[in-house]
Amino acid sequence: MKVAKFGGSSVANATQIKKVADIIKSDSSRKVVVVSAPGKRFSDDVKMTDLLIELCYAKQNDQDYDTCLQKIMTRFQEIIDDLGISHYILEDIQQTIEKYLQFDISPMAQLDALKSVGEDSSAKIVSAYLEHIGLDASYVNPKDAGIFVSNEPGNAQLLPESFSLIYKLREREGVSVVPGFFGYSADDDLVTFSRGGSDITGAILASGTKADLYENFTDVDSVFTVNPNFVKNPKDITVLTYKEMRELSYAGFSVFHDEALIPAFKEQIPVCIKNTNNPDAPGTMVVSEKKATDQCVVGIASDVGFCSLYVSKFLMNREVGFGRKLLNIFEDEGISFEHTPSGIDDMSVIFRDNQFTPEKEKVVIDRIRHELNVDTVSVHRDLAVVMVVGEGLENTIGVAAKATASFAQAGVNIDMINQGSSEVSMMFGIHAVDLEQAIQSLYKEFFTDESNLEFSAVSAKEQQ
Amino acid sequence: MKVAKFGGSSVANATQIKKVADIIKSDSSRKVVVVSAPGKRFSDDVKMTDLLIELCYAKQNDQDYDTCLQKIMTRFQEIIDDLGISHYILEDIQQTIEKYLQFDISPMAQLDALKSVGEDSSAKIVSAYLEHIGLDASYVNPKDAGIFVSNEPGNAQLLPESFSLIYKLREREGVSVVPGFFGYSADDDLVTFSRGGSDITGAILASGTKADLYENFTDVDSVFTVNPNFVKNPKDITVLTYKEMRELSYAGFSVFHDEALIPAFKEQIPVCIKNTNNPDAPGTMVVSEKKATDQCVVGIASDVGFCSLYVSKFLMNREVGFGRKLLNIFEDEGISFEHTPSGIDDMSVIFRDNQFTPEKEKVVIDRIRHELNVDTVSVHRDLAVVMVVGEGLENTIGVAAKATASFAQAGVNIDMINQGSSEVSMMFGIHAVDLEQAIQSLYKEFFTDESNLEFSAVSAKEQQ
Repeated sequence: MKVAKFGGSSVANATQIKKVADIIKSDSSRKVVVVSAPGKRFSDDVKMTDLLIELCYAKQNDQDYDTCLQKIMTRFQEIIDDLGISHYILEDIQQTIEKYLQFDISPMAQLDALKSVGEDSSAKIVSAYLEHIGLDASYVNPKDAGIFVSNEPGNAQLLPESFSLIYKLREREGVSVVPGFFGYSADDDLVTFSRGGSDITGAILASGTKADLYENFTDVDSVFTVNPNFVKNPKDITVLTYKEMRELSYAGFSVFHDEALIPAFKEQIPVCIKNTNNPDAPGTMVVSEKKATDQCVVGIASDVGFCSLYVSKFLMNREVGFGRKLLNIFEDEGISFEHTPSGIDDMSVIFRDNQFTPEKEKVVIDRIRHELNVDTVSVHRDLAVVMVVGEGLENTIGVAAKATASFAQAGVNIDMINQGSSEVSMMFGIHAVDLEQAIQSLYKEFFTDESNLEFSAVSAKEQQ
Repeated sequence: MKVAKFGGSSVANATQIKKVADIIKSDSSRKVVVVSAPGKRFSDDVKMTDLLIELCYAKQNDQDYDTCLQKIMTRFQEIIDDLGISHYILEDIQQTIEKYLQFDISPMAQLDALKSVGEDSSAKIVSAYLEHIGLDASYVNPKDAGIFVSNEPGNAQLLPESFSLIYKLREREGVSVVPGFFGYSADDDLVTFSRGGSDITGAILASGTKADLYENFTDVDSVFTVNPNFVKNPKDITVLTYKEMRELSYAGFSVFHDEALIPAFKEQIPVCIKNTNNPDAPGTMVVSEKKATDQCVVGIASDVGFCSLYVSKFLMNREVGFGRKLLNIFEDEGISFEHTPSGIDDMSVIFRDNQFTPEKEKVVIDRIRHELNVDTVSVHRDLAVVMVVGEGLENTIGVAAKATASFAQAGVNIDMINQGSSEVSMMFGIHAVDLEQAIQSLYKEFFTDESNLEFSAVSAKEQQ
C-alpha cells in the first residue's frame, strides 16, 4: 500500500490534475493521496495559498477583499469547469471561505483556517474528479484521517495518539484523498503545519499507515547530484539514504524540506521522489540503508550565508573549559553554531550569518573579549559551505585527496575542512565568491566519466 | 647581549664543559650563562639529577645512602680533576649536600633542595673553569640573580616582581653563570621548577634581561622538519616562528618543552637552538615573525595516544546547546579535549587517551547516554594526530591537496581532518598503525626536491 503526495504544481490546473488522476489510476496500491493547494501555472503566477493569505489580511484590516475573493473563486471555477465536475464543489468552497471570513476567533486561528482552504479544496476537487472518471475515491477530512495536532497556529506538531487513528485509513475502501498542510487540535481548532506542510501530512500518513512506499510527486524527475544552477543537466541520484538526504538538504538541497520527511524516516518507510509530468522516470529513492557502491559520493551540496568567528589565546588548549565557555556565550545569545574547528591556541565557530546582526556581533565579541580575555577575536562573513556527501566516505581512501585536488585545480582556497565526525559527509568552507568554480570542479571530479576513486592515489604516486 | 643555556649533555663531563667554555669565550656578548646538571655521558649512564633523587629517597627512607653519595661525589670529582680546577669546589658541593641531607624540613622541600645540587654545582664548576682559563666570570646564585618563585615544590612559578631584579644582571661585570632549574620563595625556601626547568631559567633570564638573543645549546644541530625515527636524516628547520614551534611541540616535537620558552616568547626574544658539539652550525632560529617563503610547510609533527568519542543524534544541529552540554560533561570529568569535529547530526571529541581510564569511560558514556539521550555513542582508541605546520598555510591553495594525496598514496585512511582554525597548521587524525607510512609520504611530498606547491593542482588538472 502506497501513500502518494502531489505538490502544488501537480494540482495547479485541470491538465495537471488529469495527470495526477492517471498516476493514481495506474496503480491500485496508491490508496492514500495527499494534495497541496494549487501552485503556480506559470512563473509569475500567484500560488493559491498566497491569495488566501492576502484575503485574510484584507479582511482583518477591514479593506475591500472582494477582488481577492473573486480571483480565488475564478481560479477554482476554471479548474472545476475544465475537469467537468459538479459545481456543487464550487459552492462548497465558497461557503467554507465565507464561514471562515466570519469566524470570530483569533487572527492567527482565522489565518490558519483560510490558508487551509487551498489544500482542502484541492482534495475535494481531486476526489470528485477521480469518482468522475470511475474510480472509487473519497475526500477524507484530516480530522477523519486522524491527524490531531498541538494548538500552535502555523506550526502544528502531531500528537502521538494520532498514529493509531491514522492506521485505520488502511481499512477504507477505494482511494482516500486527504488535504495536506493542516490538522485539528484536541478542542477541534483547525491548525496548519509550517509552510510546505503538505510534505509533512504525506510523511505522517505514510508512517501512520505503515505504507510500503511514500511517493512524493513534484515537478522534477529526481534529486540532482548537484545544484543545476552551477552545473547544466547534472546527473540524477537514483538511491539516497536518509542520512545522505539530511546532509544534502542541510546545505541547500531544496527538493523538499528534509524535516518534513522525518515521520517517514522514523518508521523506515522508503520514500520515492517522482515527477508528475514524467511518472515513468524512476525518480529518486530515499531509503534507510543501501548497498555500498564504487561511487561512494552521491551528491555535492552547498549553501552560502555562513559566518566564522575566530578566537586565539596563547595556551588555549591548556585551559580546561575554554571551548565550553565560548559555546556558552553563543548559546546565551541564542546563536546555534554549525561547526567548531579548533587548533591548539585557536578555535573558530561557524554559524549562519542571519543570526548575527551588528548589535549581536558587538555583544558577542565584547563578551568573548571580557569573559575569556582572548588575544584576538575576528569575524569573517560571506562564507560558503560545500558538502561532499556519501555513505561510507569515511572509509574510502582518496576521497579527501580528490576533493581537495579539485579545489586546488579551480584555484579555490579552502578556509576550513571539517571531516571525521559525520560518516557520510566531508565539509569545506570557502569564500562565497569561489562557490561556482568549486562546485563545477568537484562535479567534474566525482561525477564525470573520467573520475574514479583510485585516481588521486595514482596521481599522488606519480608525484613521488 | 645574549643569554646562553647549556643542557645536561653539554656539562656531562670535562670534555663537554671545555666546549662550553670555548663557546662562551668566542663571543663576549654571551654575558649570562645558564647550566643544567651533568647529564648522561653514554646511553645507559645515569643523570646527576636522578642520582640526587635516589640519594634523597634513600635518606628519607632511612636506607644506607653512602654508596649513592659516593657515586655523586666521584662524578663531580672526575669533572673537577679533569678540568684542573680547585678542589675547594668539591668540598663546597659536599658540604651543601650534607647540609641539605640534615635539613629538618618537609620531604618535598628537601627533595627540591637536593635536586638543585646538580645545576648549582655545574654553575660553580663552569664559572670556576671560565676564571681558570682567564675569563672574567662568576657564579651567581638564583637568589642573587633575582629569581623569586611561588612556593610550589617541583612546580615553582616565577613571581612577576622578579623581572625588574633580573634586569640588574646586565650591570654585572664579566660572565654570570647561573644554575638552572630552581629559584627561591619570598620566605627564602629553595624551590625547583618542573623537570627540564633549566630551559625555564634560561627563558626567564633572557626575558628579564631583555637579551638580544636566547641561545639554547643542546646536542642536536637544529630542529628537524620531521621526527628522525620515521625519516633518516631529515632536513633541518632554519627559521621557525613561535606559533609554528607551539604547534610542532604540541604534536611530539621534543627538542625542548615549548612552555619553557614562553617567557622568551612573551618578550619577543629570538631563540636560537644550537649544538654544543657543533657550534658553527647555524642551528634553528625561533622568532616572532618571519618572511613568507615558497616553502610554507616548515615541519610535520605527530603524536600517538589520542582517542575519539563519537556521538550521533538525529536533528542534533537543531538543538541549541548540544555541543556545549557535551563538552560540559568532559569538563566535569576533568578531561581536556583537543578537537571537536562536528557534522549535522553527529559530533566527535578528540582527546588524549591517558585521561580516559575504563572507569572514566563508563562514567562519561553513561552521562552522555542519559543526559543527552543520543542515538549512538562510541569510542575509538589508538588514534594518531599528524600536524602539517607552517605560517600562511591557510592562504596557500593546494597544501591540503598535497597532504591528502600523500595519505592516499601511502594507502592511509584519514579519520579526521581539522583545518581552518589555526592559521599555521592542518591536522589529520589517522590510525596509529599507519603513522610511519603517513609521515614518510608527507615528508616526500613536502620536503624532497620533487615536491612543489603547484603540483597537486596540475595533477588535478590532468584528471579532467
